[in-house]
Amino acid sequence: MNFERENIRRMAGYTSGEQPDNELVIKLNTNENPYPPSPQVSEVLRQFNPESLRRYPPATAQKFRQLAAELHGLDPGNVIATRGGDELLRLVITTFVDPGEKIGMTDPTYSLYPVLAQIQNCPIVEMPLMADWSLPAEFAQSMNDAKVKLTFLVNPHAPTGVLMPIDQVSNLASELNSILLLDEAYINFVDHDYQTSQLIKQHDNLVILRTLSKGYSLAGLRFGYGLADHSLIEPMLNKTRDSYNLDFISQLIAEAAIADQDYVRGNWRKVIIERNRLKVQLHELGIICAESQANFLLATIPESINSGAAELYQQLKERQILVRYFNAARLGDKLRISVGTQEENNQLLSAIKGLVDQH
Amino acid sequence: MNFERENIRRMAGYTSGEQPDNELVIKLNTNENPYPPSPQVSEVLRQFNPESLRRYPPATAQKFRQLAAELHGLDPGNVIATRGGDELLRLVITTFVDPGEKIGMTDPTYSLYPVLAQIQNCPIVEMPLMADWSLPAEFAQSMNDAKVKLTFLVNPHAPTGVLMPIDQVSNLASELNSILLLDEAYINFVDHDYQTSQLIKQHDNLVILRTLSKGYSLAGLRFGYGLADHSLIEPMLNKTRDSYNLDFISQLIAEAAIADQDYVRGNWRKVIIERNRLKVQLHELGIICAESQANFLLATIPESINSGAAELYQQLKERQILVRYFNAARLGDKLRISVGTQEENNQLLSAIKGLVDQH
Repeated sequence: MNFERENIRRMAGYTSGEQPDNELVIKLNTNENPYPPSPQVSEVLRQFNPESLRRYPPATAQKFRQLAAELHGLDPGNVIATRGGDELLRLVITTFVDPGEKIGMTDPTYSLYPVLAQIQNCPIVEMPLMADWSLPAEFAQSMNDAKVKLTFLVNPHAPTGVLMPIDQVSNLASELNSILLLDEAYINFVDHDYQTSQLIKQHDNLVILRTLSKGYSLAGLRFGYGLADHSLIEPMLNKTRDSYNLDFISQLIAEAAIADQDYVRGNWRKVIIERNRLKVQLHELGIICAESQANFLLATIPESINSGAAELYQQLKERQILVRYFNAARLGDKLRISVGTQEENNQLLSAIKGLVDQH
Repeated sequence: MNFERENIRRMAGYTSGEQPDNELVIKLNTNENPYPPSPQVSEVLRQFNPESLRRYPPATAQKFRQLAAELHGLDPGNVIATRGGDELLRLVITTFVDPGEKIGMTDPTYSLYPVLAQIQNCPIVEMPLMADWSLPAEFAQSMNDAKVKLTFLVNPHAPTGVLMPIDQVSNLASELNSILLLDEAYINFVDHDYQTSQLIKQHDNLVILRTLSKGYSLAGLRFGYGLADHSLIEPMLNKTRDSYNLDFISQLIAEAAIADQDYVRGNWRKVIIERNRLKVQLHELGIICAESQANFLLATIPESINSGAAELYQQLKERQILVRYFNAARLGDKLRISVGTQEENNQLLSAIKGLVDQH
């Protein structure tokens, strides 16, 4: 007998990027930070008393929320700590969107959003981005006309890396009748001052997602957080969140990591410098990238290079270099390349150059 | 503006037991194991390389699932690893129960079940337990008549500790038209051989919940797992589960803990011995406990002792001893007391004795 709900039976799950066991692989496919986490993380682990795992952890991660609030000039009541950004995405849906109500997003976007909408049995309203991957001027109006209850926007955008002007974010929040979930998973790699956290004081429909996965080199930890008006935080924190959603070790590590801003800022600068260099050098090989403010580049592979993106992806993989290929509309001739260390980027560039020269 | 869904607005969240910061408190209120986790857990932490947190963790916890499958004589396809038992409870609902469909349970039961049902907007069908806290003979028939889609059963029962005969579990799974979620959070403290895992081979509607919180002294880790026919595991594992639901450190610790069966079995024996001793000594003070096979006792406090349960709870709390009081039907004259170490139990007994003698 098949017990699945009808919407679950129909859907396919999320497909994450490959996670090879092989340590020799140059892994530029899932936007991980190429530098290690803060030395303070090692210190937490060194001092951790395993016996403290015997007891339940702090239920709402108060200490982390206090630190995040201080960092962003907000109150702890404006912060929820979650198991990666993923948990926050799920919570905004289960807290604010009834099954059957619509969820809006751009096309393309982060491919997890439609999966989460399907789990809640919510129809998806998609609007194509412009040719330069910017948001169409009529986006908010279209979402309102479609009676969307929640709009997902990733900024800098994935998989292109394009950043929206900050005024546009604020205007969007004003115009939308729905909740706006602003996914800032990649915000730490913006090369100029760009702060949205104070916008939640003006917009009680704005939820900002942050994660420690990329900026803090802690993808393996599964820790993120949300910033919003307390009226949005409160029901997620006290009603729909799994009780004890964050284990004790994760909380201590996340506290140490977010407190060490000097260290992470150094890493962000290194990634930005490498991103810009990689972009220029790919350009010299005839590969044009979108204007990225993230830790990855969306690179258009001309047919003249190894018959295009799908083929180049395979040939790089054979050379132990993993990048991401999306078999989707408008992305079929492109590869998304995470920015690695200088050494990793050089190996990627030299592998591509070698493949170009063969032709 | 209030964006909450109507069902979320109406509901109250789950209330967990108090988690005092004060290290001096004797904490017998949330059923934690009084003994530390396996020494292998310390070893994992000692050897852990923080740099490995840079990358995403294994998405489906394959190694842990392999170990759990071997322990229970099943295949990894019969196992899902989850963030505590809580995540599994949520997943069986979101995967198998549409909003508006009914979820069945006993009264009383684990107080999280109704909260999770409310989040999915599912009506609850409750059936009172018998006077001795056993299941009424007509339970399955009643659930079927009410067209329940999912039945929650905690065994040994919480908050009483009463264990169902194994034949009754199997008969229930046969009789129920719904999925049966058998919550075995406390199963490790049963004092005789009692194995249900092979029942999943006969019943494709049975999901068995296990957690490392109690038996493995790892409440702070948030790690549990489910056992079921692969047709039930597959959609939870590949569709409704948050991608990367388990961080890398938790996976390594859980693998080490479940592999060290000799160590945990020693702890289980110690808890069982103390449970039986505590029960006898409470009896000598005029306090009768239900027949518990869990790591707690549900104790009926006569009015003659400090005016009853609520008052005794308060007076113990003033003496830095925390137990659990439920202000609910049939439980108002009772306290749930977690079994502590011999020393902790002695302090509890002597505090109660002191309070009795004052009267």
